Amino acid sequence: MTSHADLIRALDERDTADFSALFDFLRIPSVSARSEYTGDMARAADWLAHAMRGIGLEAAVLPTGGHPAVLGEWRKAPPGAPTLLIYGHYDVQPPEPLELWTSPAFEPTIRDGKLFARGSVDDKGQLWAHVMALSAHMRARGTLPLNVVILAEGEEEVGSDHLAPFIATHRERLACDAVVISDSAMFAEGMPSILSSLRGLAYFEVTVRGPSTDLHSGMYGGAVVNPAMALARALATLHDKRGRIAMKGFYDRVRPFPTAVLKGMRKLPHSDTRFRKALGVRALGGEAGKTTLEKLWTRPTCEINGMLSGYTGEGAKTVLPGEAMAKVSFRLVPDQRPDVVERQFKAHLMRQLPASSGVTVSVKALHGGAPWRADLDGPIFDAARAALRNAFGRDPVIVGEGGSIPVVSDFERLLKAPVLLAGFGLPGENAHAPDEWIGVDNLRRGARAMAFLYDEFAARYSP
Amino acid sequence: MTSHADLIRALDERDTADFSALFDFLRIPSVSARSEYTGDMARAADWLAHAMRGIGLEAAVLPTGGHPAVLGEWRKAPPGAPTLLIYGHYDVQPPEPLELWTSPAFEPTIRDGKLFARGSVDDKGQLWAHVMALSAHMRARGTLPLNVVILAEGEEEVGSDHLAPFIATHRERLACDAVVISDSAMFAEGMPSILSSLRGLAYFEVTVRGPSTDLHSGMYGGAVVNPAMALARALATLHDKRGRIAMKGFYDRVRPFPTAVLKGMRKLPHSDTRFRKALGVRALGGEAGKTTLEKLWTRPTCEINGMLSGYTGEGAKTVLPGEAMAKVSFRLVPDQRPDVVERQFKAHLMRQLPASSGVTVSVKALHGGAPWRADLDGPIFDAARAALRNAFGRDPVIVGEGGSIPVVSDFERLLKAPVLLAGFGLPGENAHAPDEWIGVDNLRRGARAMAFLYDEFAARYSP
Repeated sequence: MTSHADLIRALDERDTADFSALFDFLRIPSVSARSEYTGDMARAADWLAHAMRGIGLEAAVLPTGGHPAVLGEWRKAPPGAPTLLIYGHYDVQPPEPLELWTSPAFEPTIRDGKLFARGSVDDKGQLWAHVMALSAHMRARGTLPLNVVILAEGEEEVGSDHLAPFIATHRERLACDAVVISDSAMFAEGMPSILSSLRGLAYFEVTVRGPSTDLHSGMYGGAVVNPAMALARALATLHDKRGRIAMKGFYDRVRPFPTAVLKGMRKLPHSDTRFRKALGVRALGGEAGKTTLEKLWTRPTCEINGMLSGYTGEGAKTVLPGEAMAKVSFRLVPDQRPDVVERQFKAHLMRQLPASSGVTVSVKALHGGAPWRADLDGPIFDAARAALRNAFGRDPVIVGEGGSIPVVSDFERLLKAPVLLAGFGLPGENAHAPDEWIGVDNLRRGARAMAFLYDEFAARYSP
Repeated sequence: MTSHADLIRALDERDTADFSALFDFLRIPSVSARSEYTGDMARAADWLAHAMRGIGLEAAVLPTGGHPAVLGEWRKAPPGAPTLLIYGHYDVQPPEPLELWTSPAFEPTIRDGKLFARGSVDDKGQLWAHVMALSAHMRARGTLPLNVVILAEGEEEVGSDHLAPFIATHRERLACDAVVISDSAMFAEGMPSILSSLRGLAYFEVTVRGPSTDLHSGMYGGAVVNPAMALARALATLHDKRGRIAMKGFYDRVRPFPTAVLKGMRKLPHSDTRFRKALGVRALGGEAGKTTLEKLWTRPTCEINGMLSGYTGEGAKTVLPGEAMAKVSFRLVPDQRPDVVERQFKAHLMRQLPASSGVTVSVKALHGGAPWRADLDGPIFDAARAALRNAFGRDPVIVGEGGSIPVVSDFERLLKAPVLLAGFGLPGENAHAPDEWIGVDNLRRGARAMAFLYDEFAARYSP
C-alpha cells in the first residue's frame, strides 16, 4: 500500500485555487441541448483543454460531428504501468425553470457546505475532481503512477450520439486497461459507493396532429377530435393498473438481476417515509410489489418528461389546439434495447391512434442508450474499494443507479476494458433540476479518492 | 317599408374612411387575457369612445371593476320610438402562436377579399359595422329612427365577469326594447343567419402537483408518481368510448332541443366531407349517433384547450416534472349551469386523483357563462328578417352556434328585452386562431343590414 499523505497535502494546499478554477468552469453555460449555447460549448471545451495543459497534460479539442470532445493525455509512466481512461462530460442540462433557482444557475454559490450551480454534480464538478487529483500527483511527485487519458465529451446530456463513433475512430489512442467515471451519486452521506448497474434510455418526442390550424373550441368543439385529448388518452394506455408498462413485448428482454445484488440492495439503509417526505409527496408510485430501490435500479420505466399543447399562458383562451406534443422516455434494464423499445412504442401509439382516429401521430426518437451491469472483479475494482475506504473512512457499498450513462457499455464493447463508476453526488442533489448541488466536502474527498485510486490501480496492475 | 337607398349611398361614400378607421381600431392589441396589454385595452376603449363621439353620439368610458366598458348614447328619437341596445366587445383573444400568422395579427391586411387581423371578425369588425350603420343614418338624415345605446365591453374574451354587475348597476341607462349583437357567423357565404342558440361555457385550469421540485427522471423514475402522467390519465377519463362526457350527473340538466329546430338544422346544406377536408382531418369525432351540426349546436362538450408540463424546448431533457397543467373547458347547453359543472368536474378529478394517489389536484374556475336559446317572435326578429333579406338578397336561415356569448342570457334576464344575434362572419374565419378574418363584402353588407334594421325595427315597434 502506498502512502497517500503527500497527495492529501498537495490537494489541501491547492484547495482555494482548485475551487476558484472550478467556479470559472461552472460559469460557462455549456448547455448542449440548445443551439443558442453553441458558442459557450466551444468556450467550455477550450477552457478545459487549457486547464489540462496547466497541470502538465497534453490536451486537444477534437471534432466529433457534434459538440467537440476534449482529450487530455499523459503517457510517461514507467513501462508496465497501466493506462487509465477517465471519462466525464463538460456539457450540462438546460437550467430552466430559471425562477426556481435560489442563486443563478451559472453563478456558483456555496451555501451550507453545498456548491450550487448547473453542472456542479453533473458532471463538471466531478470531472474536475479528477483534474484536481492528477494535479496533486504532479505537484507532489512530478509524475503519475500510470498513463492517463482524460476524455471529456460535450454531448452526454443529449445522448452522446457522436461518442461511440469517436471512440471507434480513436480506438488506439483511447486504448486502456480500465475506465473510471465519476458521474453518479453515493448512496448516502458518508457512504462511498460503487455502481453496479445503470438503466438505459429510449427518449421520444410524440406529436399528435389534428386540424391544420388551431380552432375556436366553441365553434368546432364536439365534432372534431381534440389532439390534446387524443394524446392524453394514448399516454394513459402506457401503464396498466399495477404500474407495469402495457406495451406489447416490453418486458420480453428483461433479464432478472442476480439474487445476490437484490439481497445487497435490501440491506441498504432506505426509508420510504424519508424518501417520500424529501420529495414532498404523500404517496409513492410505480410497479406494485417491488421495493423502491428495486423500482429505481432494476426495473424499466416510462415517464412523461414534457407536454405542450394549445394555450398555456395567463387566463382563458377557448382554443381547440391543432396539435399536442409530449416528450416520453423509457428507462431500460438489461437486456432491453432502445431500438426495440422504439418499435414497440411506435406500434403501441399507432394502435391507439390509427389513421381512422381523426388525428395522426408521429414519433421522433431523440436519443437512446443501452442499460448496463458491472462485473465487480479485477484490479480496478479492488483499487477502487481501497481508495474509497482510505478517502471516506469506510468500505464502499455496491449500489444501482436509475439514470443512464449511455456510453458505459460503449466503452466496454469498444475498448474491452472494465468500467468503474464511482461518483460523489448525493441523493437530493437536483441533477437536471433547479438548485443542482454537490457537497463541497464530498468533492474534496472524491478528489482524494481518485488521487489514491491511481496509486492503488498501478500497484495492483500486472500487464 | 322605408326606402334604404340613402343609407346605401351614405355607406358607399364613406367606405374608404370607414375601413381606414377600422384598421386603426384593429391595430390596437386589446388583449384582455394578459396584464401586459392593460394599457392597450384602455387605449382601445378611448379610441372607440372618440369614434362614437365623431358620429354624433355621447360616449363615455366607464369603469367596471375590470377592463372598462364604452357606452355610446343617442336619445333624440321621436316620442314612441323604441330604444335599441347594441352590444359588442372591443377586446380580442391573445394572438399566439404568432408564427402561424401570414401577416401580423395587429397589422390589418386585405387579401382575396378578406380582412385579416386579430379582432377582425371577433368582434371589433362587427362592432364597427354598427358604428358605420349609425354614421350612415346621421349623414344621410341627420338623425336616427330610434334611440340607441351602444355598449362595448372589454372582457368578453375572459368571461365578461364584470358585465352582469355593470348591467345591473346601469339598468336604467341600459333600458331598451331589444338588444342586437353581431358577434357570430353566417351559416355560409350568401346565407344571412339569425342565431337561435348559444352554448354556455365552464372553463377551468387544472394543476396536478407531484414532487416539490422537478426530478431527474432516471434517478427517481419508477418510484414517484409522474404528475404529467397522472394528469393524462385523469383527462383520459373525461369521455366514455362513445364520446359522451363520463362525469357523474353531467347530462342531468340537458333539455332536448325542440324537434322543429332540429329538423331545420337537418335541412341546412352541410357536408361532413367538406367540413372534414376544410379542417384537414381524415375523420371527425365526438358523440356517436349525432349529426355534426347537432354536435356543434345542441350538445355539450369537454375539450382540452391547453396543456403544459416539464421540458418542452428543443432536444431531450430527462426530467420528471414537479407539476402538470391543463386548461379544460366545457361547452354547455340549456339548462346546464357552469357552477354545477364546476362541482361535477372537481368531484370527478378528486375521485381520479385522491390524496392517496401521490399527487394533488387543484382546479381553478377561469370563467363560465350560461347557455341560451332564442325566442324568435316579435318586432325585432321580424325587422331582422326584413333587414337581412334586403341587405343580402335572401331570407335569413335560423342557425345554432357552438360558441358562447355569456352575456346574452344576462341581457334577457336583467333588461327583460329580447336579444337578436345576427353576425357576419363565416365558417373558417379563424376566430381565436391565427389568420382571423372577415369577408370585406360581408362586413359591408352587415353594416347595410344594421342600418336597415334600425328603420325596420322603428317601423314595426309599438310602445
